[in-house]
This record gives sequence, C-alpha cells and structure tokens, in this order.
Amino acid sequence: MGETVSEMAQAAIRHGGNLGKARLVFPEAPEPWIDLSTGINPHSYPHSPVPASAFARLPEPGAADELKRLAADHFGAPSAGHVALSPGTQMLMPLLAQIAIQRGAQNGAVLSPAYAEHARTARMAGLAVAEVENFDGLSACGYAVVVNPNNPDGRITDREALLTLARTIGRKGGLVVVDEAFIETGAAESLADAISGDALVVLRSFGKFYGMAGVRLGFAITNPDIAVELEARLGPWAVSGPALHIATEALADREWQSSMRLRLAEDAKRMNDLLEKAGLTMAGGTSLFTLVRDGRAKALFGHLGRHGILTRIFDERPNDTRFGLPGHEEEWQRLEKALSSFNHPSKV
Amino acid sequence: MGETVSEMAQAAIRHGGNLGKARLVFPEAPEPWIDLSTGINPHSYPHSPVPASAFARLPEPGAADELKRLAADHFGAPSAGHVALSPGTQMLMPLLAQIAIQRGAQNGAVLSPAYAEHARTARMAGLAVAEVENFDGLSACGYAVVVNPNNPDGRITDREALLTLARTIGRKGGLVVVDEAFIETGAAESLADAISGDALVVLRSFGKFYGMAGVRLGFAITNPDIAVELEARLGPWAVSGPALHIATEALADREWQSSMRLRLAEDAKRMNDLLEKAGLTMAGGTSLFTLVRDGRAKALFGHLGRHGILTRIFDERPNDTRFGLPGHEEEWQRLEKALSSFNHPSKV
Repeated sequence: MGETVSEMAQAAIRHGGNLGKARLVFPEAPEPWIDLSTGINPHSYPHSPVPASAFARLPEPGAADELKRLAADHFGAPSAGHVALSPGTQMLMPLLAQIAIQRGAQNGAVLSPAYAEHARTARMAGLAVAEVENFDGLSACGYAVVVNPNNPDGRITDREALLTLARTIGRKGGLVVVDEAFIETGAAESLADAISGDALVVLRSFGKFYGMAGVRLGFAITNPDIAVELEARLGPWAVSGPALHIATEALADREWQSSMRLRLAEDAKRMNDLLEKAGLTMAGGTSLFTLVRDGRAKALFGHLGRHGILTRIFDERPNDTRFGLPGHEEEWQRLEKALSSFNHPSKV
Repeated sequence: MGETVSEMAQAAIRHGGNLGKARLVFPEAPEPWIDLSTGINPHSYPHSPVPASAFARLPEPGAADELKRLAADHFGAPSAGHVALSPGTQMLMPLLAQIAIQRGAQNGAVLSPAYAEHARTARMAGLAVAEVENFDGLSACGYAVVVNPNNPDGRITDREALLTLARTIGRKGGLVVVDEAFIETGAAESLADAISGDALVVLRSFGKFYGMAGVRLGFAITNPDIAVELEARLGPWAVSGPALHIATEALADREWQSSMRLRLAEDAKRMNDLLEKAGLTMAGGTSLFTLVRDGRAKALFGHLGRHGILTRIFDERPNDTRFGLPGHEEEWQRLEKALSSFNHPSKV
C-alpha cells in the first residue's frame, strides 16, 4: 500500500503543509483535504480586520517597538531590548549560526531528532554540525540547539540543564539556541525569563499556537547586543504590517490564550484516544501534535492520503508519523473513519 | 525655523515612513498626517479580500511557485527558475553581498547617492564599500550596486553600460546588483530580460508601485543557481500568505498597471508644477517621488512638519528634500497651502 508513495513525493512533502504536492500524489483523494502534517493550531486567533494601511504603508517602527514591549511582557523577557522580531524564526537560524561563527565557533550540535532546519542552516552558515541524541553531547561545541519541547517527539529538556549548558558554552564565547516554538502548549518551562550573559537565545514562534503561520512572525529573546545584531542583519521593516497588527492583538489577549490552552489539551487527548483505538503506538508529542511510531508508517501515510488526510512522515525515521490536530468536528470524524479502515483493510 | 528640528529627530526619520517619530517631533501638527516621506504609491492595489487561510496556514510552496512563474512572465525574466522571492528586497541585500564574498569579492561599490541600505548591508557582510559618484568607478570592484532609476535623484543608467559592467565584473567572478525598485514608473529600462551568465542580479520591489509596502515582498531576478542560493539562505516560507495572495492578483492585472502608470505620471506633473510654483528647484525624481534641492531644506522640512506633512531629508545631503505623492485631493490642497505659506512666511 504505502509503497505507492514514491520517494519523490516523500521528499517533496518534507516540511509538511504542502497540500499542492499531496494533491499530486493522491489525485483521487476526496476534497477538502485535512492537513494534519504540521503542528499549527487549527483554531486561528480571531483577530480584528487588518486595516488597509497595514498592507499599504511601510510598517511603522513604533508598531514594531510596541510589539516588542508586549512580547517582553508576555514571554517574561527582561526588557523590550531583549526581543528581536523576525518574519518567522526560520530566518533567524542562519543568522544565529553566523553570529556564533563570528564569535569563534567552528562546531555546532543539535539535540536530535529535531526540526531539521536547525542543522541545515547551521551547516549552510559554515559550522560542522553533529546531530546528537544525548544532551551531554552538546556542551563540547560552540553552537548548540535544543528544541524544547521537541518537535516531533515532544521531548522536554530540563530548565536547569539548559542554563548549565548556556553557562558552559558561554564561557567559550559560544551560543545556545533554545527553540521554544511549541512551548505555549505548556509542556516545558520557558527560558525567556532567564536571559543573562550573552550565550542564550530563546526562539518563540507566533504562527503555531496562534494558528497564524501564514503571517510569518517569530521572536528571538536574547542579550540586547545580539537582538540588535539580529535586527541589523534582517534590516528595517523585517516584519509585515499585517503580522504586527495581528500579533499585537493576540499577545495581549490572555483570555483567548488560557482558554485555547485548555481546548488544545482536550483536542490532544481526543487525538491520542483515537490513535490508541486505532492500535497505533504513540512516541510522544505536545498538545499541537502527536508522534506515532509504527512499522506501517508509510502504509498509514498512503492510506490516510487516499482519504484526503495529510500527515507528516520522515525520510530519516521511516517508522514515524506526526499527526497535527483536526479543526472542526467533520474533520475529526473523517479521521476516525479513515483510521478505523486502516485497522481493518477489508472496510476500505 | 528648521533649526528647531533636532539632529536626533533628523536621524530618527532616516528611512521615511515613520509617522510615530514625526508626531513626537511636531506635537502640534494637525492630524491626519500626510506622509510624503517615502516613494510608495498612495493609490494601493485594490486586491480582493485576503482569505483567512492565507493568514492561518503555512504559505503553500505551490503558491510561491505560481507567483514566480507570473513574475518571470511579468518582468520578462527567462524562466521562473530565474526568480527568487523575499519578504522585501531589503533582506536580499546582505545575502547578495555574502554570495559575492564567497565568490572572492573583497571590495564593493555603490553608485551614489543612492538608497543607503546597499552600502550598509554590504559593509555588514564584510566588504570594503566605496560610494562612488561616477559609473566608471564601479568596475574595479567585485560587488557593484546601481539603483536604476536611482533613489532619490531619479538618475537613469543606460542598459548597455550596465550589461558591459556585468560582463567586466562577471569575468572576475563578481556580482552586479541593479536595484530596479522604482522602474515601474517607466523611467529606465529593465535588465530583467537580460540575465545571462552569473554576474547580474536585478532586484524588483512589489510594495512601491503597487502601494503595498506593508506586505513585504521583493524579487531577485538572476541566474538560477543564485536564485536557489538566495532561497536556501532565506529558508522555507520566506514570503507570507497575504503577500502571495495580493501579488498574484496584482502582477496579473495589466489593466491596473497601465492606467496606474498614467495616473502616476499625471500626479508627478502636478507635484512638479506645485513645487515649481513654490519656487523650489527640482533635482530629479521618478513619477513616485521628486527631489528638491534648496538651501532652505531643513526649514522647509520643519515648516511642512508643523503643517502635518512629512517629507524626507537626508543627513548627508543637507540641501535635499524628497517628496512622495499625496493620495487624495484634500492632501494635495493641504500640501499646496503649506507650500504657499513657506514662500510667504507672513501668511503662516
């Protein structure tokens, strides 16, 4: 079954979220597609209409400053000067590796498996990068990356261990990047309030928890010198007017945030129950995604694909499938139905 | 008069478009402010509503590919593979300088005066950068930048001269960047159709002609290897969903483009007549901005500022003031009135 999914297709869907490719690979699948291939909240933040001026005018530096103040408060960073804005944390990754190299780093290490872009961008910047499975393997390098909680397996790294690592690597002049893209789910403890010295960089994502991945917005919380350096490299007006408008509302909306946290926890429980019922073994996750480890991963991907449900498989870990959350009830029911016919192929 | 505008304020408004700062410097100015400090079309492209999914979902790679095909067609580039998308051309500048350095460049030159970010970003990347006033001064370096038509003075550089420069610098393995941010105004001839070899990079801006500076979108048109390299450095999902939606409509809308070109030419004529009537000397421009050269530049800036009209002055050229276009009739009339009272201070 799964063998009909060519290596080409598997490579092409490497990042999740590519429904265009999914339609090519599964041309007979029913529409609309259900995209579970990312860890993005399907319940998007209900922002007010974006004013025309946010599209038309250059983003006002004052609006970016205001968002930084709000972000510092929201994330618990020491000050707005500790925050840099970027059109997605993705774009900060190569810049951070470049800064580490300028400070003398030659080797990088990423606690792995993790979001693959960290290793790619650090290598592109010129570092020799090891993908280490053991946390202790990080301290020998000048540029260390930990995703916390980790994507795709939800692994949580202890705050004290990270602070010790930052001190160790900081003594050599290096950088420790803690990517907290999924931390709003409550699984791990943020280090945004623990910036001291100049070794620690915390990355926060806007798109995932707020379900606003299309606007492209991310934050670095770090020493003010590094924040200034990052923004100098990105240049003026790095973040779009619509992103500033939406995020300024969303970060201030504590009520939405806390009710969403509860809702996602319920959704995640429902997802896990559903996967368990389908006889699949869970290998971790956060409330925005669940990792399934099963020898039938490719077959499962193909089966769900033919039902118009896109999940995320991994070239390098052929037994893993990541499930994001469905949005509305109809999507849940289609998923449940498709999973039950995977267990009982005769029902397909 | 103008002396009340502090150096601090002058520095702070360095880039134009900063109404927040203008309000601080001119607290008594009438609202709404009229922002003439940028060269952005005040008649924004009338796009259809941006669908919620463009904000919520990761931008589809297929949508970016479609925009690249459309852009190649629209700009006359050889193929979609010759186009790289970026959240503003600003962000491409340091990357291009980095690529030039990787290819062996040590020195850069910018035909000046020009948009200041070219020199800043090339220096930041590690090049020694000369700001040369003579075109012939460019050919000795490994990284040359020409803004065509130039901002702020509208200087036009001949197509053949640029192609010769690209051949000369190309033989050394270097890069020539032609920033065509304002070329839609029709003043200069684009090089987008002349990409051959691997030395030439044409930058095109979306925000200026389409009046959509807030969405952050720019294009590099260049050799496919360089396009791939730029996109690898920007990483996946560099351009936002709203930017993809709006630009895909706008680039296909030939009718809007040609009528807008006429409208802007009329607006520019009206602006020039108005400035002339006010006794000011024009030193160049495009249909999106006019450069005035006058010993009273600081006083003029201050006078207009007190009338709630923001223009652009330049630290390094104290006699220059750049005027963008007003939007609607009321703005024109406020500008005319303010200019007339500058000529006759007794009427203030």
